[in-house]
Amino acid sequence: MKIELIERLSQQSSHKTLLCVLDGLGGLPGPDGLTALESASTPNLDKLAAKGSQGRTLPVGYGITPGSGPGHLALFGYDPLEYVIGRGALEATGIDFILGPDDVVARGNFCDVNGNGIITDRRAGRQSTEITAGSCELLSQIKLSGIDTFVLPVREQRFVLVLRGPNLSESVSETDPQIEGVPPSVCGPLTGSVEAERTASLIRRWVNAAHDLLKDREQGNGILLRGWSSRPNLPSFPEIWKTRAAACAVYPMYRGVASLAGMDVINAGASLSEQIHEMTGQWNNFDFFFLHYKYADSAGEDGDFDAKVQAIAEFDIHVPDLLRLNPEVIVVTGDHSTPAVMSGHSWHSVPTLIAGRHVRPDAQISFGERAAISGELGQFPANELLPIAFAHADKLAKFGA
Amino acid sequence: MKIELIERLSQQSSHKTLLCVLDGLGGLPGPDGLTALESASTPNLDKLAAKGSQGRTLPVGYGITPGSGPGHLALFGYDPLEYVIGRGALEATGIDFILGPDDVVARGNFCDVNGNGIITDRRAGRQSTEITAGSCELLSQIKLSGIDTFVLPVREQRFVLVLRGPNLSESVSETDPQIEGVPPSVCGPLTGSVEAERTASLIRRWVNAAHDLLKDREQGNGILLRGWSSRPNLPSFPEIWKTRAAACAVYPMYRGVASLAGMDVINAGASLSEQIHEMTGQWNNFDFFFLHYKYADSAGEDGDFDAKVQAIAEFDIHVPDLLRLNPEVIVVTGDHSTPAVMSGHSWHSVPTLIAGRHVRPDAQISFGERAAISGELGQFPANELLPIAFAHADKLAKFGA
Repeated sequence: MKIELIERLSQQSSHKTLLCVLDGLGGLPGPDGLTALESASTPNLDKLAAKGSQGRTLPVGYGITPGSGPGHLALFGYDPLEYVIGRGALEATGIDFILGPDDVVARGNFCDVNGNGIITDRRAGRQSTEITAGSCELLSQIKLSGIDTFVLPVREQRFVLVLRGPNLSESVSETDPQIEGVPPSVCGPLTGSVEAERTASLIRRWVNAAHDLLKDREQGNGILLRGWSSRPNLPSFPEIWKTRAAACAVYPMYRGVASLAGMDVINAGASLSEQIHEMTGQWNNFDFFFLHYKYADSAGEDGDFDAKVQAIAEFDIHVPDLLRLNPEVIVVTGDHSTPAVMSGHSWHSVPTLIAGRHVRPDAQISFGERAAISGELGQFPANELLPIAFAHADKLAKFGA
Repeated sequence: MKIELIERLSQQSSHKTLLCVLDGLGGLPGPDGLTALESASTPNLDKLAAKGSQGRTLPVGYGITPGSGPGHLALFGYDPLEYVIGRGALEATGIDFILGPDDVVARGNFCDVNGNGIITDRRAGRQSTEITAGSCELLSQIKLSGIDTFVLPVREQRFVLVLRGPNLSESVSETDPQIEGVPPSVCGPLTGSVEAERTASLIRRWVNAAHDLLKDREQGNGILLRGWSSRPNLPSFPEIWKTRAAACAVYPMYRGVASLAGMDVINAGASLSEQIHEMTGQWNNFDFFFLHYKYADSAGEDGDFDAKVQAIAEFDIHVPDLLRLNPEVIVVTGDHSTPAVMSGHSWHSVPTLIAGRHVRPDAQISFGERAAISGELGQFPANELLPIAFAHADKLAKFGA
């Protein structure tokens, strides 16, 4: 669906829409031939499936394995091939750093280098967030002429480096060679532009200064930078949809992408109960809620089929709390599949469920990959899910007379 | 899927992918209400279906009946509406003639004409390949100023005429009126360009000279030319996919389209056993194999339902030989449907089956048009099949972070 069309047809509505994203929801059969979703005890989701309709979303395209960024952009209605968020930008936004229009940003790792400048551990033994915070404070002293820098800790050895100033370019090379046993790469321009030359030169100076400041440390005495990017130019979700949109997510990356889309990020604790508690408190302030639940994906990434089953069952327990909020429309889906047997994201379609007053029910009475094959929604691009959901919330006017 | 995206995401992989194309596979019900695929004894394909997932491909689009060229281009991942191979170019490549950038080429038929120049048999009684070879040698004597000509026998009454030289145009009219009882048409330009005028004039001279040389023959004393085309500009399949690709096909046209896509054509005898034998010998030299099996289509074209059933059953017998090669991914599909009851190609979707380690199975336990309706792959454009297959062979990197 073209965003221009949506903007033309969208209208305000008092109905509330709740989009529940179980990260990495889709899977492949486990030992007993059923997927994690099919195996999990999900009496509440099954009840929802019996009343609602199911289908399968394709996040990016046939055969394409999506990263979390594109997976979520699609769920927010953006064509993930048209709108791309750089990794640096995603990471910065995920720690609630507001990227400006002049910013160029990278993800950083502290690493270990030996006396010859060779990387011996790309992650500095996963040094603690506290040590990283101290190092970031130290590196914040580095001054570059004509621009500001921000060095911000993320988690463990990870940090974010933001360069802010006029005439910077994201078209510069990464210094992370992605392997150990070699020195960090030297940053260079990726285009012939003056801006790229200048930015690469500034980065080289910053990296040298950083290595000087860190050189006496035993751990985390090196710097690796990658994912250079600037703020993506995403059309505003609240404006496109004429909605007050809230994102409730525990992990930085998902808060980040929602924030880049212009949603309000509401505080949440680390557990689903706390997320739902927070959403309940904010229920009257918004009419669209994005609820992100991470643990189906984490378990899948770990290759732990049973943990994924458990994570899904745990979500199911909280479904009655969500229904008590009485949303007009509730959607349960994932941003991609993460089969435990593959220990990673995959290209497989994502089982998707929608329930609401005007849903056309199908014959399915449980929620799962196989049930979804015969669901009413069919198989469709994930960025069409939101138009479907919002149609059920009376948010899309008739097209044509 | 856009080819630019595929080029960005594709990566080398040691896993092997086998694409089996049963030409004209899809059909309509025969006398007992089942299609040829549903009627045929296919225990091996059914076993594959029980483990794998099914779906239905649309070669060109809803309601569009594809020729063999677009049907195969789609299976090779090209958008058949964007990339078009002229019939002449296909025929030339199918006899292993390497088309140059300056070539303009037509498919030719020897035909019978009477004393008044009226066509009495468009196919010259399907004269033997030997007679056609002799005639082609004779016609090779014709000289046209400023260009080279190649006259090459194909099979029975069919031949290829190639004009090679600067400033030629494929925008000229066919001389084959497609009916008998009229004289061959006179070639003319289809655009106002100097090149088209010049090319049509050269062709008229060539046809007149040919009719002079052949005029004393009782059979095959006329010439019909159609399908004027030049070499298509197909992006290279091995480069797009970073793969070593082999085509194993008995019939020239299918070797031709594979060769135009940049695949290596490996020799094969006339039978499926010989094809598989050849593929087995070459198994270590390639990581993608396109196996073309013609006889489902031939039977369909002949309107012979039982022969189509037999042809499919015959393929099934060889499936264990294919599985013994141990491909990571095996795909069984067709380039289009050829219902025997229609004696020709049709627009109907094509039952498609994929099996491999990371396939998400569906509930189907046999391979067929009706089973495919409830298959996991759904209904999708045929040019998305290859991205799906190659995803299963670990040939597509994750999109985005």
